[in-house]
Amino acid sequence: MAAEAAPQVVRVDGRPAEAVSALDRGLHYGDGLFETIACLRGRPRLLPLHLERLAQGCARLGIAFPGREALRGEILTVAGGSERAIVKVLLTRGVAAARGYAVQGSETPTCLVLRYAFAEEDPRMTLAGVRVRLAAQRLGENPSLAGLKHLNRLEQVLARREWSDPGIAEALMFSVSGRLVSGVMSNVFLVEDSRLRTPRLDRCGVAGVMRAAAMRAAQRAGIAVEECALGGEDLARAREVFLTSALIGARPVRELDGRALAAGEVTRAIQVALAPLLAGDADG
Amino acid sequence: MAAEAAPQVVRVDGRPAEAVSALDRGLHYGDGLFETIACLRGRPRLLPLHLERLAQGCARLGIAFPGREALRGEILTVAGGSERAIVKVLLTRGVAAARGYAVQGSETPTCLVLRYAFAEEDPRMTLAGVRVRLAAQRLGENPSLAGLKHLNRLEQVLARREWSDPGIAEALMFSVSGRLVSGVMSNVFLVEDSRLRTPRLDRCGVAGVMRAAAMRAAQRAGIAVEECALGGEDLARAREVFLTSALIGARPVRELDGRALAAGEVTRAIQVALAPLLAGDADG
Repeated sequence: MAAEAAPQVVRVDGRPAEAVSALDRGLHYGDGLFETIACLRGRPRLLPLHLERLAQGCARLGIAFPGREALRGEILTVAGGSERAIVKVLLTRGVAAARGYAVQGSETPTCLVLRYAFAEEDPRMTLAGVRVRLAAQRLGENPSLAGLKHLNRLEQVLARREWSDPGIAEALMFSVSGRLVSGVMSNVFLVEDSRLRTPRLDRCGVAGVMRAAAMRAAQRAGIAVEECALGGEDLARAREVFLTSALIGARPVRELDGRALAAGEVTRAIQVALAPLLAGDADG
Repeated sequence: MAAEAAPQVVRVDGRPAEAVSALDRGLHYGDGLFETIACLRGRPRLLPLHLERLAQGCARLGIAFPGREALRGEILTVAGGSERAIVKVLLTRGVAAARGYAVQGSETPTCLVLRYAFAEEDPRMTLAGVRVRLAAQRLGENPSLAGLKHLNRLEQVLARREWSDPGIAEALMFSVSGRLVSGVMSNVFLVEDSRLRTPRLDRCGVAGVMRAAAMRAAQRAGIAVEECALGGEDLARAREVFLTSALIGARPVRELDGRALAAGEVTRAIQVALAPLLAGDADG
């Protein structure tokens, strides 16, 4: 394991640990949720949105939510003392009391918190943008899981296996019915006629916290933004395309499946509007 | 934890252990596969089919298959000395060398093997049959994962949460497009005009080893068997319905969503044909 890539801190249920129970339902069924949080100078960025998504995810899956204060404390403990860090929180339903899918209701959630290095932003990524491909791997559609950042991520693993060229930053994914959904690890926005459009996530996809922040920023900047069903033709027509995630903020796409694109006015306006938040000076 | 429900043996990578790495990709992404194997007098039932499915699953996901001999050895070690046991094998891509979905290719799979008590068969379940409901929870469709017994099982967890009545043995599940797929933890067969029909698993569902054994048994017994697209109307028209799994063999459904059903000639013929295999006297 490259020392740089390995986690710097690993805690399980509030204590330093390197392992979880072999009976954890997160391992057996992907029965849990996660968050990936960018931290600057020990401060987790967009923390209220991350905690809110986790709380809502727990409610939808019927997992006992440990509470915002407890989670905030764990995240601050792990983020503390580092200039830049990525904190990953993984929350599962807990240890299985018996074999099988059935939930007992008495499970105590397992809370895993990891800290990783957060490399300095490469300004070329932010300004010129990134190269993006189209994934062959499709996303299944299921409204009951749509929007959740849950632990069933085999589709993303398979999509990410499609390329190894480090010059490609991301791949856009379509659903089995042909809808544009997101990147493998980011959300996507299209610009058409000075209007922002992003896939509606009612059938699949993860409702990203930076996606929410970007939509709010657009509204504040007077840019119309719409969540809707989008397909390959919308992507082909888009004048600007950008990606969002908690880690990258908003990044223009400068090449999409071989087609050259450039960040235009709308993408720049969103980047400017998000800048204070990305610098850690605002709570978004 | 009820002592009866807890595993009797837990081994990780060939050694007694109670935990797995907090960085395991099985935990973070459900990046792995599993098998649930019925063992009688220390002998794993349908072992060649279980190992073949695991090998094929590894090939489809690009996970390094540890080899049939190594797995057989582990399973026999764990099953040994018990009259009746359920052995669960869970195979993940291994420990993540870095954060993120990307596969390095150098991962060493994690092999978790657990032994649980295997209760004596209740003859009423086999003869009279079981009560079954219809799940509200749907299954997403994705051909790239269809048939695999992978670790992304949130849909099954949610479906199993829909009932707590111990008198209900199983729930049948439909896909998002309305196709009948399977039970939460079993496959399903319908009888119509002395013909057997079972859902084709090209969009979702798990290709069960007992499903394969039942289909083979039907062919040997001269019963026509067809894999096809089935819907709610087919279920409503079926004269007999039975469930299969590695643990239960073939069980008639005696009540489906309130409608009374009875095991007929075809179900009984399949049960008779499977009997030597279920008794552990044949390799199926």
